[in-house]
Amino acid sequence: MRQPPESPLRVACLQMEPHIGRKEANVARSLAMIAEAAADGANLVVLPELCNTGYVFETREEAFSLAESVPDGPTTHAWMQAAKQHDLFIVAGITERVGDKLYNAAVMVGPRGYVGTYRKNHLWGAEKLYFEPGDLGMPVFHAGAGRIAVAICYDIWFPETFRLAALQGADLLCVATNWVPMAEQPAHLPMMANILAMGGAHTNSMFVAAADRVGVERGQPFLGNSLIVNAAGWPIAGPASTEREEMLIADLNLADARRRRSLNEFNQLLRDRRTDVYGEMLGSAARPGPY
Amino acid sequence: MRQPPESPLRVACLQMEPHIGRKEANVARSLAMIAEAAADGANLVVLPELCNTGYVFETREEAFSLAESVPDGPTTHAWMQAAKQHDLFIVAGITERVGDKLYNAAVMVGPRGYVGTYRKNHLWGAEKLYFEPGDLGMPVFHAGAGRIAVAICYDIWFPETFRLAALQGADLLCVATNWVPMAEQPAHLPMMANILAMGGAHTNSMFVAAADRVGVERGQPFLGNSLIVNAAGWPIAGPASTEREEMLIADLNLADARRRRSLNEFNQLLRDRRTDVYGEMLGSAARPGPY
Repeated sequence: MRQPPESPLRVACLQMEPHIGRKEANVARSLAMIAEAAADGANLVVLPELCNTGYVFETREEAFSLAESVPDGPTTHAWMQAAKQHDLFIVAGITERVGDKLYNAAVMVGPRGYVGTYRKNHLWGAEKLYFEPGDLGMPVFHAGAGRIAVAICYDIWFPETFRLAALQGADLLCVATNWVPMAEQPAHLPMMANILAMGGAHTNSMFVAAADRVGVERGQPFLGNSLIVNAAGWPIAGPASTEREEMLIADLNLADARRRRSLNEFNQLLRDRRTDVYGEMLGSAARPGPY
Repeated sequence: MRQPPESPLRVACLQMEPHIGRKEANVARSLAMIAEAAADGANLVVLPELCNTGYVFETREEAFSLAESVPDGPTTHAWMQAAKQHDLFIVAGITERVGDKLYNAAVMVGPRGYVGTYRKNHLWGAEKLYFEPGDLGMPVFHAGAGRIAVAICYDIWFPETFRLAALQGADLLCVATNWVPMAEQPAHLPMMANILAMGGAHTNSMFVAAADRVGVERGQPFLGNSLIVNAAGWPIAGPASTEREEMLIADLNLADARRRRSLNEFNQLLRDRRTDVYGEMLGSAARPGPY
């Protein structure tokens, strides 16, 4: 007989299609999808990068005019209400304004309100014209028994992102993303972004839940292919379609993330690191813990 | 018209089946396969982990009795002769003895003799009973115009391995390996070891050439699936079969490894690292270079 999971968490990735500049409609759409996920019993939902504003800004002024404070802006307020109403956690990408600065951020809210903010550490392309690089390190948030880290899109091109999360004991990395096509992707192999999610999960014994957007914005297509990966590195939901809005849902046993770090009687992934050869990760948020 | 490659290197991965303890036969087989690769114009050949002795030792004494000094033992001597005769470079796994210590090593030899040794940094399973952890860091060797780093099997479970090589400007990571089956591998997806090779190549803009063994030794099956991956992360030869000895061969333009580090006008993979967040790699061999 199969044992019930010790640390169950039902995660939904909401693959949606934001439209540039139509913030009210985008937030309304996110709330409708969150309600669907709640009806399916989700405890945690993940939404794409910049899902309240859209992604392809034409100018910094356009981005600035759409940006909001976190947590006191209207988008975060709406998500906090939904989190309370549905008794779940939400991780969602948002265009954040702090004084004159802009950040490509993700907010986490829960049944008891605002949990925290992550700001994208690795900016892609023209984002470097609009946004400041993230200045909050790699925080790990708590959602019930689970430890949750957050990354945004290009962040997962840096294996350091997974490592920083895992070294702080994260069980799950939520990825809010807007993946764009890359040259040379063979049709018969998984998308490179999916490969990076699988490898990062496997080598850090950590679940990964990536919510991508779909649609074409000002000529820029996005890739969909959202997925949820288990702590051994294998997809347990998705990859989703390339073009449709849809919801992925999966039941995680977060205990697996902690258990699997031992590969056999001699090997434990995080302890086997040769920090004498390549150094510890030294950032403020990177305290190699007793995990 | 297609331009000729600026920095051409023809690489062969020799997927062979060593037999435990039959060192003379194993070395003879490696020499025969090297000759085949040379006949096909290879400039660099990669052979599996511990390919002169076999892998599944029953005791440390057995490993010790089979081990040799490098470069003055008979196996390295035979490979140096072959490298000179065929005018090529060889990277091959070898059981190395230094006084009373044993290392799971790989030797690189070339037309002008011994080039250098790499000693496996991350030991797997019962290797921890027989071998010392590698104490040579992550050296980068030169083969003509190319900069070559070496890893052994479980080393590629550590993304730090790829990073250390790339930060020193390596164009190609040669992986001498003895991959073993892992739980939960889905049949419809690439082997996790292949996924790690693809992701490591892509996120570091570096070619990867992995030579695995085949066969079953004292009940332990090995996986084959050797492959050669380009600097964008995609297989250009292999994956090879699961059970047969075979040769993979591919023409690399090493210039791609240097060119592709720029993804677009704003992004360069190694420069985009947020070392302020997670620290530099500090090991003696990890000098972040001007690459």
